Amino acid sequence: MSLALRQRLFDELDRLILIDPHTHINPYAPAAATLADVLGYHYYTELAHSAGMPKARIEEPGLDPKEKVRRLVEYLAPLDNTIQYSWLVEMAQELFGFADDRVTVANWESLYDAAAARMRSPGWAREVLKKSGLEAVFLTNDFDDPLAGFDTKLYIPCLRTDDLVFHLAKPEVRGRLEKASGVSLGSAADVRTAIGRLFEHFVKHGARACAISLPPDFAPARVSPAAAVAAYEALVRDGTGAAAERRDAANFVFWTLAEFCADFRLPFDLMIGVNRAVYAGGVYQGQDLYDSRVSLIQYRELLNAFPQVVFPISVLASVTNQELASYAWIFPNVVTHGHWWYSNTPTFIEHDAAARLEAVPRTKQIGYYSDMYKLEFALPKFRMYKRILAKILAERFCIDRGWSEERAIDLGRQVLRGNVERVFFAKE
Amino acid sequence: MSLALRQRLFDELDRLILIDPHTHINPYAPAAATLADVLGYHYYTELAHSAGMPKARIEEPGLDPKEKVRRLVEYLAPLDNTIQYSWLVEMAQELFGFADDRVTVANWESLYDAAAARMRSPGWAREVLKKSGLEAVFLTNDFDDPLAGFDTKLYIPCLRTDDLVFHLAKPEVRGRLEKASGVSLGSAADVRTAIGRLFEHFVKHGARACAISLPPDFAPARVSPAAAVAAYEALVRDGTGAAAERRDAANFVFWTLAEFCADFRLPFDLMIGVNRAVYAGGVYQGQDLYDSRVSLIQYRELLNAFPQVVFPISVLASVTNQELASYAWIFPNVVTHGHWWYSNTPTFIEHDAAARLEAVPRTKQIGYYSDMYKLEFALPKFRMYKRILAKILAERFCIDRGWSEERAIDLGRQVLRGNVERVFFAKE
Amino acid sequence: MSLALRQRLFDELDRLILIDPHTHINPYAPAAATLADVLGYHYYTELAHSAGMPKARIEEPGLDPKEKVRRLVEYLAPLDNTIQYSWLVEMAQELFGFADDRVTVANWESLYDAAAARMRSPGWAREVLKKSGLEAVFLTNDFDDPLAGFDTKLYIPCLRTDDLVFHLAKPEVRGRLEKASGVSLGSAADVRTAIGRLFEHFVKHGARACAISLPPDFAPARVSPAAAVAAYEALVRDGTGAAAERRDAANFVFWTLAEFCADFRLPFDLMIGVNRAVYAGGVYQGQDLYDSRVSLIQYRELLNAFPQVVFPISVLASVTNQELASYAWIFPNVVTHGHWWYSNTPTFIEHDAAARLEAVPRTKQIGYYSDMYKLEFALPKFRMYKRILAKILAERFCIDRGWSEERAIDLGRQVLRGNVERVFFAKE
Repeated sequence: MSLALRQRLFDELDRLILIDPHTHINPYAPAAATLADVLGYHYYTELAHSAGMPKARIEEPGLDPKEKVRRLVEYLAPLDNTIQYSWLVEMAQELFGFADDRVTVANWESLYDAAAARMRSPGWAREVLKKSGLEAVFLTNDFDDPLAGFDTKLYIPCLRTDDLVFHLAKPEVRGRLEKASGVSLGSAADVRTAIGRLFEHFVKHGARACAISLPPDFAPARVSPAAAVAAYEALVRDGTGAAAERRDAANFVFWTLAEFCADFRLPFDLMIGVNRAVYAGGVYQGQDLYDSRVSLIQYRELLNAFPQVVFPISVLASVTNQELASYAWIFPNVVTHGHWWYSNTPTFIEHDAAARLEAVPRTKQIGYYSDMYKLEFALPKFRMYKRILAKILAERFCIDRGWSEERAIDLGRQVLRGNVERVFFAKE
Repeated sequence: MSLALRQRLFDELDRLILIDPHTHINPYAPAAATLADVLGYHYYTELAHSAGMPKARIEEPGLDPKEKVRRLVEYLAPLDNTIQYSWLVEMAQELFGFADDRVTVANWESLYDAAAARMRSPGWAREVLKKSGLEAVFLTNDFDDPLAGFDTKLYIPCLRTDDLVFHLAKPEVRGRLEKASGVSLGSAADVRTAIGRLFEHFVKHGARACAISLPPDFAPARVSPAAAVAAYEALVRDGTGAAAERRDAANFVFWTLAEFCADFRLPFDLMIGVNRAVYAGGVYQGQDLYDSRVSLIQYRELLNAFPQVVFPISVLASVTNQELASYAWIFPNVVTHGHWWYSNTPTFIEHDAAARLEAVPRTKQIGYYSDMYKLEFALPKFRMYKRILAKILAERFCIDRGWSEERAIDLGRQVLRGNVERVFFAKE
Repeated sequence: MSLALRQRLFDELDRLILIDPHTHINPYAPAAATLADVLGYHYYTELAHSAGMPKARIEEPGLDPKEKVRRLVEYLAPLDNTIQYSWLVEMAQELFGFADDRVTVANWESLYDAAAARMRSPGWAREVLKKSGLEAVFLTNDFDDPLAGFDTKLYIPCLRTDDLVFHLAKPEVRGRLEKASGVSLGSAADVRTAIGRLFEHFVKHGARACAISLPPDFAPARVSPAAAVAAYEALVRDGTGAAAERRDAANFVFWTLAEFCADFRLPFDLMIGVNRAVYAGGVYQGQDLYDSRVSLIQYRELLNAFPQVVFPISVLASVTNQELASYAWIFPNVVTHGHWWYSNTPTFIEHDAAARLEAVPRTKQIGYYSDMYKLEFALPKFRMYKRILAKILAERFCIDRGWSEERAIDLGRQVLRGNVERVFFAKE
């Protein structure tokens, strides 16, 4: 009974047309050109490397895409248990007519060719969006992105700010900021002015969010104007500044971003918990890990200081999920946001989503985003989530709490679609 | 099969007559007078506020109860997914004859009136207790409570000590202590004497526990008599004392409480993990949150120093539950106690209770307490727990381990009722 | 349907012949001599003590085994809910012909006698191994174990190194090291030479792993040769050295072990998270607990420094499991290893194993080890794990992901058996 119920709920949820509120799509090349763009996703390269593939096999300069795929496929067998692998197979079946349930040295080439043929077809990106039930996707734009030459209603800009907060000491970053803003950066005040220009530019081009990923030891604090001035000077003068000054500078920029989010009424996506480059020998984008000892209490001052800013918050580790649910239950400006990265696997999604669905107001939960780099991943990733959502709704709401199917679907619809509109488009 | 089994187990567990080992019931007004006492529970006001209701809507001085309910109901729709909301609906259905499954602007007034009528009926509190299967409830009494004018067999006193440990620097608290104890507080020794008087008073009036809630950074330690003297002097002299002296003073009082618990053979309920007033703009009682980075290793010295004191321990975050289960498995004086506050939702209860039931001696687990302020909440809260308990017993004991239903019910009975007697009344 | 499926998968998994990759078996007395060796396991003594049995009841010098069992049985009733108790009953039923489902004051003696009779029979250890489906077990050998007089193909040596890293300040430990290695320990360089001799000895006698258990605050770091020299001198000179020197000495020895693991191609089992002697009044081996605030980020430098060493990692608390899965997903040299101690109970195993099975390459997961002191425990402990594994495979792979039973069994086989060979015997 429960399985048939789950299936019915899934079928209804899978009919929805969605907006994906966080991706890394390149609007000039949103879909994959070959299977190398699919298998080059760090989830596959890092798992294959972890399972034994030397990094040099795939990071050789000038490597032909087909050869890259051939080399990767040799190392896929040890991953065939993972949910990440299941994304690949479901994508291949649904988008490229793949008939097997594993990608092997025996069948990869025909899959490669079939995929390449479809990817070359005119309007492939649009077709993928349609098959995936997506009407728009959020981007992750460098702060100096011109945001020109693409449809910003379909590919919605989002101002990503990691470089500004954590790498402003690099002359190259300051140079990019000067160029993008037209402001010469002589002082902390100039930095503020320049950031304001970025917000103007982004909002003019339809940006719907500001976003940043944060290390587990970050604890934002307001810094005094004098400290901001001193910190910026130290940072420019000696390239990094002392630890305290680096922290002050990061806090000054971060706080400034929050202030502009308030001024421009942009939600500020916080993605909390990642340590960069923990595994120095890892493949491209496969070096980051984390310290799960992080608490949202570190954001206490920020959340109190900006009641008018909505903070969709993602946490990296499932052990932080209860805090996220509790903070969203208490703070009007905290919204739970998707299942991020190392928590984007079924066991954690199920535990975390169930806890949110039963304790956080239904209007304050954004169920899922794909985090994808190529459009082809939306279909299998969202389906994974919808299956888990259907399972939770079936078992914990219909069965355990006596809800009607209609009521359950309505809740699913809201976390999948309604709240994206509510939070980022101020509808409803 | 599993669902029918769960139902049978639930039905048996729901027949038990219980003692609720932790509530905030006011013995002079144990039941609600109107629905405003129900919807005024911080679970609703804070969730409604989190979902958009301005605090001023309900914290206006002199607000009429019916008007308060009207205003709250306008903001309930976004909460209708939460388990907290389900308590309200189940209570309304079971106690007030409510026939719908949601409380809306269309139906709230008749519910309000129906509830008010029943609440006005003579013997309402007794009736609620009876319908809820409760024969007694523990209170949470201020240390200077006279404990007079109510039946202490029905409303069992419990000495709550947060003020003594954390707010003794306030002249008002010391004044209350002097008045309640009849001891003039000139020194640390006087504080000890005064606290002893409180214990005498409470035990004489049938108190069955001493209790305290503790912030996540608290790590009780024995302080030397000299340090206690110095700390108390500093605290009186300058109102707070330096951080080290405040800590010493808190430790001195806390340790003194544990010593008197030993002398008077009172269990000492520790509720570990809350940070007060994290969200300064929150509604009344809706400002507290936590830092889940807490460990029971902080209680190592205490647990070793007082083998003769039973410590029923509640933890605020589910990530601390495994430590609680492990410490109860090793330390004879540690008992697991209920599912507290932000962990009092089904997903966490299920995970946490299952872990306890399979690894902690059956005699050392107190399944549940309601934490309620008004008697009407016992029924839906205990039922929530019993449903989850029945699910765990059905799936993890009867099915996974081949237990008979009778054996499973017997375990359920023990954690629901038997251990409350064992721990707080030294029965068996 | 799901239950029958679980049963079919379990039956297949239970047919496998396994190698147990971590035990505390004494190869000269691998099986129990009487039931006192079974009930003397700390899981029972500590739980019975926690439930009320005075320590002196069973730690009386010269206590007769039968009397010890009689005394323990008196205190077993409060544990009959625990999974640990279920190991006892399943063992008694499967190995000793026990027909009841509880061991009581009424039936213990016949069980004791029946067990003693079987334990006395010639070839009992071999029979237990056969009934348990084990073809070999890893030992936990003191670093100065002569490794003589037993079959090292059946009882595989493993070099346990806690004493070297954490207790080298004790003259007795240095004396044992001098004697075992034949090296006079005048300097840090001598310690290195001596440790090298231990590795030679162990590898010559078929050792397949080096192992250590580590406290939660340990964060291995490379120390400079000068610091190692100074630290060792301080440690010899004054017995402990200052905290910094103790840490340097521990790090020096630990790093040296990792270097020899690289040289000798031995996996280095890290068992992370235990605090020793937290409960000073506890029974033998029943005093250890933990602080769950630990992170694998503490092992960042080590994991990067030794890419050629395989680290099978066990974590004590389930809250660290996601980090373990993530680190194994990224670092080629990290392998997930079993479910250790306080996490070796069904709720945690289920959550933790499910998370690993769906996100870590299938070749990098060692499903289970028994950690047993007597062979009789392999059967019930491995069966517990296999039942949970069958449940996960049934529900999360066959049902949720549409896997065939054969494919699921194949994955189960790999984590139960294949990866033990792969990791410790470099096969496949």
